[in-house]
Amino acid sequence: MREATLAEIADQGYGGLTVEGVAARAGVHRATVYRRWRNAAGLAADALDLASGEPWPVPDTGDVRGDLRELTSLVVAHFNDPHAGTVSRALVSAAVHDEVTARALHGFLAARHRRAASVVVRAVERGELPEGTDGEETVRAAVAPLYYRLFISGEPVDAETAARAAEAALAAARAGVFVEPGCS
Amino acid sequence: MREATLAEIADQGYGGLTVEGVAARAGVHRATVYRRWRNAAGLAADALDLASGEPWPVPDTGDVRGDLRELTSLVVAHFNDPHAGTVSRALVSAAVHDEVTARALHGFLAARHRRAASVVVRAVERGELPEGTDGEETVRAAVAPLYYRLFISGEPVDAETAARAAEAALAAARAGVFVEPGCS
Repeated sequence: MREATLAEIADQGYGGLTVEGVAARAGVHRATVYRRWRNAAGLAADALDLASGEPWPVPDTGDVRGDLRELTSLVVAHFNDPHAGTVSRALVSAAVHDEVTARALHGFLAARHRRAASVVVRAVERGELPEGTDGEETVRAAVAPLYYRLFISGEPVDAETAARAAEAALAAARAGVFVEPGCS
Repeated sequence: MREATLAEIADQGYGGLTVEGVAARAGVHRATVYRRWRNAAGLAADALDLASGEPWPVPDTGDVRGDLRELTSLVVAHFNDPHAGTVSRALVSAAVHDEVTARALHGFLAARHRRAASVVVRAVERGELPEGTDGEETVRAAVAPLYYRLFISGEPVDAETAARAAEAALAAARAGVFVEPGCS
């Protein structure tokens, strides 16, 4: 059902996502889909919830610069991918207007922040970043400029943008900007 | 007409913005509004275009830390304001789905980036930041974490978030991350 939902979003956009379309694509009776997911937003939210629990390779290149650069590169490559990027752009856009999809997106991103924060935990252990550096805040700082360009200012993102976002987060983390209060 | 548009968005949300509502509020004939603005998106885009040209006080506190902190504080205070914040959140959300509003928002933000970049020009002149630092990129870095939380990850923003975003952009700028290629 999730595959069918994502395929429908890729083909029709989120605006064209319907219970009928997903049911037809999945070869399932419409009433079954209605009973369980209720509407398009329910299908999209469920797809996001499932994605939150999915295994996802946290970068582990051996140093924090490499890890942060890989993290931002993955985000840019994902959103610039013709298939996966279209689906994810549609889901993020949908979340701006729909409360159910928004809650699912916020949960998805919170899970991603938490997992990716291990990059910073390892960096602190290796002595690359100050003791007490907030991993989730470092990750947010690294990805925020990419989402800002993609969804707010409407500017392109490329490998260069990704590298610069990683370097900026790294410089701030090294300077102690993300050290949690009481930990410095 | 612009005041009426913004007041309607504040009261009804962008979803409730109609040519009829704006015409009634402004005390203008419906047909006049239709002829000139065509639809709700046209009204919203026009309100944004007008805002782009408005005078806007670029922070000038005497040092780059103070200027960047004031810049991010202004953004947070604006979006957390019950009236102005509601309107701006609605316009940014509308832009995610509507091409006409999106173009107007992108133009509005590009104009803001350009104006705010003078903070960095002055900092370079004072020797606070490396020669060749890209002002617009520094400004983007300072505001991106705020927009990311507000519109993407759905996390609250407060004075603390604003200060941290400014400090992170400052640390990255000082480290030379935003020096334009060929200028280092």
